[in-house]
This record gives sequence, structure tokens and C-alpha cells, in this order.
Amino acid sequence: MAPVFSFRVLHRDGPARSGEMTTAHGVVQTPAFMPVGTRGAVKGVTSRDLLDAGAEIILGNTYHLWLRPGDQRIARLGGLHRFMGWDRPILTDSGGFQAFSLGARRVITEEGIRFRSHLDGSEHLLTPEGATDIQAGLGPDIAMVLDECLAQPAPSSEVRASTERSARWARRCRDRFLALPEEKGPGPFSGGGRGSLVHAAATGPGTPVTVTNPGQAQFGIIQGGTVPEWRALSVDRTLAIGFEAYAIGGLSVGEPPETMFSVLEHTAPLLPADRPRYLMGVGTPLDIVEAVSRGIDLFDCVMPTRNARNGQVFTSEGRLTIKNAKYADDAGPLDPACTCYTCRTYSRAYLRHLFVAGEITASVLNTVHNLRFYLDTMARVRQAIVFGTLETLRRSLRATFSRPLSDS
Amino acid sequence: MAPVFSFRVLHRDGPARSGEMTTAHGVVQTPAFMPVGTRGAVKGVTSRDLLDAGAEIILGNTYHLWLRPGDQRIARLGGLHRFMGWDRPILTDSGGFQAFSLGARRVITEEGIRFRSHLDGSEHLLTPEGATDIQAGLGPDIAMVLDECLAQPAPSSEVRASTERSARWARRCRDRFLALPEEKGPGPFSGGGRGSLVHAAATGPGTPVTVTNPGQAQFGIIQGGTVPEWRALSVDRTLAIGFEAYAIGGLSVGEPPETMFSVLEHTAPLLPADRPRYLMGVGTPLDIVEAVSRGIDLFDCVMPTRNARNGQVFTSEGRLTIKNAKYADDAGPLDPACTCYTCRTYSRAYLRHLFVAGEITASVLNTVHNLRFYLDTMARVRQAIVFGTLETLRRSLRATFSRPLSDS
Repeated sequence: MAPVFSFRVLHRDGPARSGEMTTAHGVVQTPAFMPVGTRGAVKGVTSRDLLDAGAEIILGNTYHLWLRPGDQRIARLGGLHRFMGWDRPILTDSGGFQAFSLGARRVITEEGIRFRSHLDGSEHLLTPEGATDIQAGLGPDIAMVLDECLAQPAPSSEVRASTERSARWARRCRDRFLALPEEKGPGPFSGGGRGSLVHAAATGPGTPVTVTNPGQAQFGIIQGGTVPEWRALSVDRTLAIGFEAYAIGGLSVGEPPETMFSVLEHTAPLLPADRPRYLMGVGTPLDIVEAVSRGIDLFDCVMPTRNARNGQVFTSEGRLTIKNAKYADDAGPLDPACTCYTCRTYSRAYLRHLFVAGEITASVLNTVHNLRFYLDTMARVRQAIVFGTLETLRRSLRATFSRPLSDS
Repeated sequence: MAPVFSFRVLHRDGPARSGEMTTAHGVVQTPAFMPVGTRGAVKGVTSRDLLDAGAEIILGNTYHLWLRPGDQRIARLGGLHRFMGWDRPILTDSGGFQAFSLGARRVITEEGIRFRSHLDGSEHLLTPEGATDIQAGLGPDIAMVLDECLAQPAPSSEVRASTERSARWARRCRDRFLALPEEKGPGPFSGGGRGSLVHAAATGPGTPVTVTNPGQAQFGIIQGGTVPEWRALSVDRTLAIGFEAYAIGGLSVGEPPETMFSVLEHTAPLLPADRPRYLMGVGTPLDIVEAVSRGIDLFDCVMPTRNARNGQVFTSEGRLTIKNAKYADDAGPLDPACTCYTCRTYSRAYLRHLFVAGEITASVLNTVHNLRFYLDTMARVRQAIVFGTLETLRRSLRATFSRPLSDS
């Protein structure tokens, strides 16, 4: 592959940066939040809603799409962008995290992760090469390497061993990635060129690898748990391989927030200043601003979408539980400071009614708002960096979101 | 109340008419289809989606809104239009049909329908006066009278007795309607004016009646089962009371289609030619065109929305079951003849994937399409009447929708 990828830092405010990340499907302003489209759809909304909310990049889950409807099917249909009706940037994870957390009877060896599908019990093997091939077929603008997700807390020796294995897997992912053809389409991978590439461990042996986005970039992932020494080791190993950019993995998995921020404080500065830094799976609006102020540029989290479906709404005044009886007669908008379609059109009383009645539209409207809130927050973060006022914004968000629920 | 209501027939094609119905919230081109917003939301879509689909009028269910969130609450919040974020015309039914079909332990007396709520078992009494008051509070542009919904088949004598009772209830509804104040807002209804009006049997005795839409019109309903004599009797009785327009009820409740069309053929011509005729609860696209060709102007049905959520899609090529395995690799749109957001953006393969995965977005996108299909069909019906080609359109739809499912 020949990645179409670049990153420019345009402004700084302490360790925080704002900039532009250019991908094969366009530019993303950073710091950026990526709504999560687990199974080829951001739950509850359409591509049009995502554009309205201001999303510039979304995330897809390789594990889910690989098992259903299948990476080869999506490749035949032109790749994930065409499949989802979304022509802006997409990042996919490697599938490793879900294989660990959703797959049954999983066995991890040097080869990869063997597990049974949560859908039908069928046995699968996800290898570094397979994860790379699957993502070549899906065709996101950014693919992630397969890493080992170690359950925390773990003894330091285990963390180190796992970090070393993740680094070996990262090398195999990168080798595979670099051997992929630079043209769109399936093979031919036999005889000459970059060698004979067939799926190592995806939909089946002998399946030719299909490249649907020749401009795809690949990010490495820093592991190492909460041990500074192993984080530094992971940075060394991963930078030595060389990727378009780097993510910090293995955080937001149950450790205290202070621990996460402490890891960011010593890990982020070790990463190249001219590449975006992606903190996987984070987080609350406050977590995000705290991480930005420690030099992070990219985020993804199911929180805005999942909470919306559960009736938990983020507002400029704090969190709000729409089911609360006190909203039954509330004629005001969810968030007076928001101009999303939901806040422009519907009252809290109506949204409470829809939620209590179990209407699908409750999920839709709450999701439309929560995504806008997250994406507006990112816009405010970028603006604050430009104007050097991130600390003020951070304090303000801390005051808003450290309070108990606004309706409790 | 002082109804803002008028109707103009602009074109005729045999018994079929096309025209304009003017209500307090604007004009509706007829023949018109009303998407059903049972509990204050058309399931799966937002008001914006309804506008995109071309909806000019929607229907709300009085029974559901009365029990939850409550007609008085909706009245306090400004009425159903404001509550739902929909400023175009709305029609509400009387609540009778759901009290019959959903209420438990129902007892029908001359007074009204006594039943227990399907939500919490609480006891309620729905009288003609109560149904009128509730709809005054909800504030649709068109309110319906309370009628008795007789289970079919029934002996002719019972049908006659029920028809007579419905006529007496219609009189009580009209009397109550005409006594409602002509100004927006709750009471005062004591001493002078049109008398002391308090809820006869709605949220509780002593509750003042609130009028949220002084321009509301009220439609009578023709009953009489499948007996031409009792239909004619019902027409006589109902016209003698005098309403802004008339609906034909008690059809599409399990009788053969020929029976329904036969009733329409002898009933529709008995109704005033200068008022719209509304066939309640109908139906398939073919049913609708058949009924239009017998002089009907208004329709409502849950079919496009309910079928969408079940993965049954209406297309110009017939019905389609999106779950069918043959669509797994189908890169084409649901309906090549449709330009709705779903058909412009997503493939059958993607929509099948979303449906199989159980994504909310499957319901949303299928509903967006089915509503557009229904509303486009109505536009074609109106055009055919203008150009005198309704028979051609009817034959074409019959050929399309009499076929077995396109994918069976």
C-alpha cells in the first residue's frame, strides 16, 4: 500500500495541539472524536445525521464486520465507505479487543488469537496477517495493528511478555501491510511483484487478499499496561518498526483515571511530535479534555451513542437522565446551548415521553444530540487551543461534569 | 370551536377525485395518505424524515396519548403539534378502536366504554363527550367522533343496534364539540357563555377543558358493517347531525377485500360530493388505489411503518423481504425507481446486513423508504386523476402487487 496520510500541527497550547490529519478520504481537524460504528452503522443514526452532527471521521469494528457480513463481501461491494454510505475518513480497529472480550474459548498463542464466534460458535483464528488482510478488504483510511489485550491488573512480568508479543505482532502486521499491492482489487499475488499473498487466517486459506483503499494508513499501538518502563519499551519497539502514527492502547479498562493520565503524561511525549496520537476507547468529555491537555489528538468511545439509547444525555449543564419524572412537563430543549436537530425541535417533556414509551425515535433523537454535544465539545477544544485558553475550558468542563447528575 | 376547514375538488376521473383540503395547519393535497404516529411519533422516523418523505398530514392515536403522557399534559405543553414538533396538519382518532382492542375488561354501555388501561390496569371511562374533550386538548386539526367498533361478523340486528348507538354517540360528540370555547386555553366555563364545560369522563371530573386548536374540525364516521341498509341508515343519521366531513369506519377488519370494495361502492356516493371521504385503517397500495377509484380521499395505515420494522419493503417492483439471503451481495438500491434518502445512499446488501444484525438504523432506513413509497404512490394517484389515467395506474399496481413477493 502507499498510504495517503499526513499530519500538520497548526497550534499548540502547552502539550495540547490542534492540527489537520489528511487521509485518503479527506481531512480531519484534530483533536477529533470518532463516533463508533460497530457493525457498519453508528447505532441509531444515519450518515446524514453524522454529517449534521459534524463528524469528520468514524470508527468501524473489524471483529464484527469480519464475522458478519464478512470482510470479503464488503470488499466485493466496494469497501466499507461505499457499504456504509459514508465517504469521509474511517478508522477500523484490528478486531483483537472484541476477539478477547466477546469470543468464547479463546486461546492466545504466538500465532494469534483462536476463538469461537459469539454469533454461531464457529471457530476462527485472528493472526496479525489476517487482521491486516481483513482491514485491506474493508478499506478504512486508517487500519490498526493487532495487539494483545492483557487483562488488568497483571504482574509486571506478564505485562512485559505481553508487550513484547504485541511488538512482534506489530512487526508482522507492518510486514504484511507493506507487502499488500498498491492497486485496488484482488490479487494476482502469485509469481513476482510483492509475492503471493493469500489470507493467512481470515475467511479461509487460499482466499486472495483484496485491497479496496490503496491509500490506507496503518497505526501502531503502544502497550505496556501501567508500568512506565514497559510503556517506554513498547514505544521503542513500535517506533523502530515505523507506522504512519501511533495509538495508546490498554487504557480505560478499569484503572483509576489518575493512573490513565499518569501513563499519558509519560508516554505521549515519547511519541513523535509530528504524528497524531490516538487514545483508544476514551472517554467522557472530561477525560477527553484532560487527555488533549496531555498531547492526545484522536479519541473514540461508545459513550455518547450507548448512553443516548439508555436515556443519558450530555448537556452544557452536565448529564441528564431523561426518564426523570421532573422532565414530564418540561417544555425546554435538552440543552439550551445546543442547536442540534433534537434541541431545535423537541422538548424534554416529549423526549421523556418517547423514552418511557420505548419509541425507537427516542434513541435516534438522543443519539443525534449526544453526538453533537461530543463533536461541539471537540470544536471548542480546538478553538481553545488556537486561542491558548484550554486550561479555562478544562476547568469549566471539570466543574460541569464533576458535579453529580444535574437531575439527581 | 370555529373550524378552519374547507375542501375543493379540482379534478375528477370517474368517481375518483383529486383536490385540496384546507385545515388550521395548512393544505393537504388529496387523495392523501396519513402516516400513523401512534404515541406521538411515527415509529422509526423524525418530523424531518416525514417532511422529506412528502407527508402533508399525520395521524395520532387519542387512546395512547390520553393514557400516556396524558391529554392535559400535552395541552399544557401547547398541544400535539408543538409536542411532536410537527406544524402541519394532524388528525386524531377518537380512542374508541384502541379502547375496544387494547383495553382489558371493557364494558360498553350507552354512557360509553369502560375499560382498564393496557399500561397499568387503571380503570377509565371513555364517553363521547370525553373523547371530544381529550381531542380538544390534543388540538389536532381534525378530530373524530367516538363510535362503537362492533366485532365482525355479527347478526344484522346487532349491527343495526350498534349503528344506532354510534349515531347517538356522534350526536353527543357534535353537541360537545359545538359547545367548546372558540378561544385557545382552558375554561373559564362557568356562568354564561356556552355553559360550564368540565371533563365529562377524561382525566377526571372537574378538570376544565382546554382548547389548544380553535380551528379544529370534526369528522363523523359511517358504520353499518357490511349491510347496505344499515350503511345507508348510518349515512342518514350522520349527515343529519352534520360534520365538516365523513369517514367510513368498520372496514378492513378481516372481511374479504371484495366486501370492502362493495361497501365503498354503495356508501361513498351517498356522502356529500363536496366533502372529503376518509377510509379508516386502509391499507395496501393496491387497496388504496382501488378505494380512490371508488371516491375515497383520505387514508391511514400502519402498514408502511410496521412492515418496514419487520423488513418488508414496498417497491415499484413489488414487495421485498430484505432478510432474504439473495440480497446479501446485492449492490443495488431497494427500489431503483425511488429517490428517497435510503435508496440514494444504501445498497440492499447493507440494509440486509443492518436488519440481520438487529440495528435500529435498519428500522429507520426501511421506514424512510416505505413512507416515501406510499407518499409517492399518492402523488402518482393524484397525477393520474388530473390526466384521466387512474385506470392505467390501477392496472399497473394490480400487476405489481398481486404478484407473489418479488423475492419468494
